Amino acid sequence: MSSTRPDPVASPSAVPGTSLLDGIRAPSDLRALPVESLPALCEELRSFLLDSVQSTGGHLGSNLGVVELTVALHHVFDFTRDRLVLDTSHQSYPHKVLTGRRGLFPSLRQTGGLCGFTNPHESPYDLFHLGHAGTSISLGVGLAMAASYEEPRPHVVAVIGDSSLGAGVAFEALNHGGVRGDKLLVVLNDNEWSISKSVGALARYLSRIRSNRTLQRASQEIHSLIASIPLIGDRVERTLDQVREVLRHTIVAGHVFEELGVTYVGPLDGHDVEGLVEQIRRVRALDGVVLLHTLTQKGKGHPDAPTHPERVHAAKPQKSALPRATPESPKISGRECTPAAPSPAAGPDFTKAFGDALMSLAERDVRVHAITAGMPSGTGLLGFAERYPSRFHDVGICEQHGVAMAAGMAKGGLRPVVAIYSTFLQRGYDQVFQEVVLQGLPVLFAMDRAGLVGQDGPTHNGVFDIAYLRTLPGIVLCAPRDQTDMQRMLELALTLDGPVGLRYPRGSCPAAETIHASERAALLPGRAELLREGGEAVIWAYGALVGEALAAAERLAARGLDVGVVDARFAKPLDEGLLSKHLRERRLLLTVEEHQRAGGFGSAVLEFASRESVGLGGREALVKVLGIGDDFVDHASKREEQLARAGLDAAGIERTLERLLRVPRPVAP
Amino acid sequence: MSSTRPDPVASPSAVPGTSLLDGIRAPSDLRALPVESLPALCEELRSFLLDSVQSTGGHLGSNLGVVELTVALHHVFDFTRDRLVLDTSHQSYPHKVLTGRRGLFPSLRQTGGLCGFTNPHESPYDLFHLGHAGTSISLGVGLAMAASYEEPRPHVVAVIGDSSLGAGVAFEALNHGGVRGDKLLVVLNDNEWSISKSVGALARYLSRIRSNRTLQRASQEIHSLIASIPLIGDRVERTLDQVREVLRHTIVAGHVFEELGVTYVGPLDGHDVEGLVEQIRRVRALDGVVLLHTLTQKGKGHPDAPTHPERVHAAKPQKSALPRATPESPKISGRECTPAAPSPAAGPDFTKAFGDALMSLAERDVRVHAITAGMPSGTGLLGFAERYPSRFHDVGICEQHGVAMAAGMAKGGLRPVVAIYSTFLQRGYDQVFQEVVLQGLPVLFAMDRAGLVGQDGPTHNGVFDIAYLRTLPGIVLCAPRDQTDMQRMLELALTLDGPVGLRYPRGSCPAAETIHASERAALLPGRAELLREGGEAVIWAYGALVGEALAAAERLAARGLDVGVVDARFAKPLDEGLLSKHLRERRLLLTVEEHQRAGGFGSAVLEFASRESVGLGGREALVKVLGIGDDFVDHASKREEQLARAGLDAAGIERTLERLLRVPRPVAP
Repeated sequence: MSSTRPDPVASPSAVPGTSLLDGIRAPSDLRALPVESLPALCEELRSFLLDSVQSTGGHLGSNLGVVELTVALHHVFDFTRDRLVLDTSHQSYPHKVLTGRRGLFPSLRQTGGLCGFTNPHESPYDLFHLGHAGTSISLGVGLAMAASYEEPRPHVVAVIGDSSLGAGVAFEALNHGGVRGDKLLVVLNDNEWSISKSVGALARYLSRIRSNRTLQRASQEIHSLIASIPLIGDRVERTLDQVREVLRHTIVAGHVFEELGVTYVGPLDGHDVEGLVEQIRRVRALDGVVLLHTLTQKGKGHPDAPTHPERVHAAKPQKSALPRATPESPKISGRECTPAAPSPAAGPDFTKAFGDALMSLAERDVRVHAITAGMPSGTGLLGFAERYPSRFHDVGICEQHGVAMAAGMAKGGLRPVVAIYSTFLQRGYDQVFQEVVLQGLPVLFAMDRAGLVGQDGPTHNGVFDIAYLRTLPGIVLCAPRDQTDMQRMLELALTLDGPVGLRYPRGSCPAAETIHASERAALLPGRAELLREGGEAVIWAYGALVGEALAAAERLAARGLDVGVVDARFAKPLDEGLLSKHLRERRLLLTVEEHQRAGGFGSAVLEFASRESVGLGGREALVKVLGIGDDFVDHASKREEQLARAGLDAAGIERTLERLLRVPRPVAP
Repeated sequence: MSSTRPDPVASPSAVPGTSLLDGIRAPSDLRALPVESLPALCEELRSFLLDSVQSTGGHLGSNLGVVELTVALHHVFDFTRDRLVLDTSHQSYPHKVLTGRRGLFPSLRQTGGLCGFTNPHESPYDLFHLGHAGTSISLGVGLAMAASYEEPRPHVVAVIGDSSLGAGVAFEALNHGGVRGDKLLVVLNDNEWSISKSVGALARYLSRIRSNRTLQRASQEIHSLIASIPLIGDRVERTLDQVREVLRHTIVAGHVFEELGVTYVGPLDGHDVEGLVEQIRRVRALDGVVLLHTLTQKGKGHPDAPTHPERVHAAKPQKSALPRATPESPKISGRECTPAAPSPAAGPDFTKAFGDALMSLAERDVRVHAITAGMPSGTGLLGFAERYPSRFHDVGICEQHGVAMAAGMAKGGLRPVVAIYSTFLQRGYDQVFQEVVLQGLPVLFAMDRAGLVGQDGPTHNGVFDIAYLRTLPGIVLCAPRDQTDMQRMLELALTLDGPVGLRYPRGSCPAAETIHASERAALLPGRAELLREGGEAVIWAYGALVGEALAAAERLAARGLDVGVVDARFAKPLDEGLLSKHLRERRLLLTVEEHQRAGGFGSAVLEFASRESVGLGGREALVKVLGIGDDFVDHASKREEQLARAGLDAAGIERTLERLLRVPRPVAP
């Protein structure tokens, strides 16, 4: 085992079976504890998380950071009446333990098991199923408004991380909430401590507050500072500057928030649970929006944290000291993320294939810049960032800005590649529309996690992008089936003079020609590739599922059924020539995609068939659409399980074709 | 004529034909003028706008406010090299006049005429075609980044209004731009002057800066202030508070921006063109992001402005002193908007029908709250706001927050109705997905301007919402054909336990039963209404176009062709029973919608037909989709013209059916 990935170490304070934590069956048990016993409870809870999450995997670091905060909140508030919203909610594990779900932790993020985020289906203590960052304050403002109609009025608490606070929606919520003044406690879980990697000026501002921590000593300081300033004659100008500077940096900590109408309290030590309880009790009485700034340490309590804190904050997962945990939660620029878990014994994943292809393009074309919204690792851009730091732009959790900025860059002659997960691009949809597509600008959207994502579930599944993008006029949409087409589609996008959306899923990316050995057809917009001629039936598959379609065709061929396979390559524009031919000459055309059926690739094919008036008369193909039905797909241990359940793997495609061709199943031997 | 709408008054300074303005054929002519002559030029320009825009209609007030600013920018910069981005760009008229488009003003916002926004198709001085607010800083950050590769480096200027600055994307851009530090001049066009109606704490903060305007006198003030504070013994605590308060309010104007890494300069008088030129020249030399805060007066120079400034800022268009102009541009909460122009001699428009229906519901159900994102007038909520002020929430130009807040409210037991234009709901798409639809919360999205909007053009057309919404599992989508169904759909939505999207266009809303006199079928999700039985062909129309479909059927009937008409009512779920029947029994089924063909209602019908395996064999209906093709629809004088051009009016539907049924046109008499 590599020296950078040491063996898991026993938890710092081994707690025997009979413990405080064992006594917590519900938060009411916690509230009954004296405050003095909370530190011990926190130790047990932390110990439990270390043991449990290191064996299952999951967001360990961020959860270790909020142990005391979560205990303090559940000690002070009664969330059967009061309301708690955890932003993004990847840091909800302590909350889950305290609300009766400790026994479910071995199933964390597994098929049918505990969700990695808050989820109302799981517990009444979870109000929302979240996963996208930055909306907890808005939800809190809404809950607070509703609470004002209840007697007694429930308290509303929103917990938000420092990097989520940089999302525009969080600013909008503070800006509005501050003026409305409904009672709302916003707890800022600032886990950057001193190693700030968060993006943006706000992060720098928080960092300055942290580095001072002088609010409590401000009265003494202001006295001596002002007394020491020489107020004589024409030095007034310089004095003014000094006073300004001094005040900005020491006294008015939190004044940005106060200018937004929010009462700022802090910064507090987020690991002093007794202090937290005391402060939370105090601010509970305050009216309006209160921002309680707590400083927490990500990975707090991990055996390596005290001696090698930098490892816990390490930017690169492979250097992390949290062997089974931080590879799931690198934090470069604030976004908690789950990088693609490469399939066992498979080649590189699509993420890496994209990163490699982009690197080779960037080498040849200096106009190529890469943009990520807080996911440099998850989008495979760490190599790019290292090699081309000045052409790499991490905007933080700000997809809207990232997309619009790319439009400006493209207008200025650059070739921006915006690498954003399919699900997160929804946050920048209006900018995709107005700033990019309406202008016809050459921005390439590289949509990772376009499809089912496994353990993260419906908040992270990228299964709407074909629908929300293909309705926009003029955009080119494509999806590679393997590394060769990944490379060639990126190359193609750079030659086009308009926007391109490239989608690819989590999962392994076949190497060149491993899934189909034919000479590769030219890659042009609206040109599909016929991989297998077939007989009466033909599959039109889009993207990574081409491999599954080919496998299904082979299985059927082994049983004497000759089914053709087309790699559609483009969802927009479609290959109208080949499609028209197949619609007229075949009996069955089955589209296959890792996307909702509603509005997806198959739907585009149907629209074309309708335009061509196929369907009237008896000679044309029946077009059937295989995709995800009208439901959200729950998390599962692996994407492959979700694909199988949705009938989108080779076996599922085979079954569908069998049914459609009304072929009896082979009798079991 | 009502006393609140006086006759247009002659422009304050009548300028003869030969003038400074006549000499400006391009910005280079302006740059050649001595700065002393700029005030006179501004007078002429203002006078021209008053005359021209009052006769054509358009955004007069906001454009009168930026005359000096625009002249000063074009005087200092050379936008053949430098780059200018106008946020939203409704205030681009002076820019258009100065860049050679003065002669086109009689065609402003008319079919084939001058666009009401910046538009690269119109002029190389217009970099982007904009209309949605808040993205100019992001575009500027991108342009500045690209500019850093050019030698000599062009200057980049982004002009943004005070209310656009409240949009989350603007915050994201400042937050990122401030840290990047690429050279960018952001001009804050703060036109609230003293009558602040902008929403949010940021607006209040700007207002405090405005009311002080003491930055230039700060050195004197700080001297006397600090000197006057008694610094003795145990009064330190009180002293601290005083010092803090004083400093916050007087000295550190702009410090919120400075904390964001932005150099704040201002506030400046935005109507002192010579002062502006001097200051812009000065800040042009500064590095990094500079925010130049200019105070302008909306409607500046209008004859009524000096004597009745409140009229120019009037919240209610009908009380405005700008007879032909402000009805187009009320400003309640910061958003420039164009309320629906009622069709001549028609009933109330859909906007009013919605407002009235919502009022009657709110009367009966105290849980009903209304939310708007800066468009209380445009969304027909002024009456609601007046009658139920505590249940009316204007969040400013913050669709993301508005949608997420509604989710919180719904979770807390309220019944929020989010009234946002179809096109602007794109800004809140991710919150529609995660905060509302994934949670299954009962939020009603009332999407006004869902369809073609006439003079505002492609930035404002609401023609993507069916596609981007229907792909989300579980949402109910409906569209009323008249006032009766508007009322009943709102009532229905309140009885459902999940999200509903209601779409309706700009245009007149038929009164109850005026377009079809049958007894109304029960309104249930997934239940269409058969309005006309017909023969082999049947039209399935969605929403307001049902009226056009009926008219088309009547025209065809007059010619002996019996075509059925169904009001689909729901795009999701579809009426599968009736649809299945029609697919099997009819020869032709034509869907009609005011939406892109890609992914719209017709696409949903095709998906259902595919699921039902219709299309194989010779007995089923040919399904054809009538909608907007894969292009952006340009602005036109009226929505009706756009509908006609898209073939979506009665004549167009008739033509399509004729063609499909291969009926020869009647020979002209």
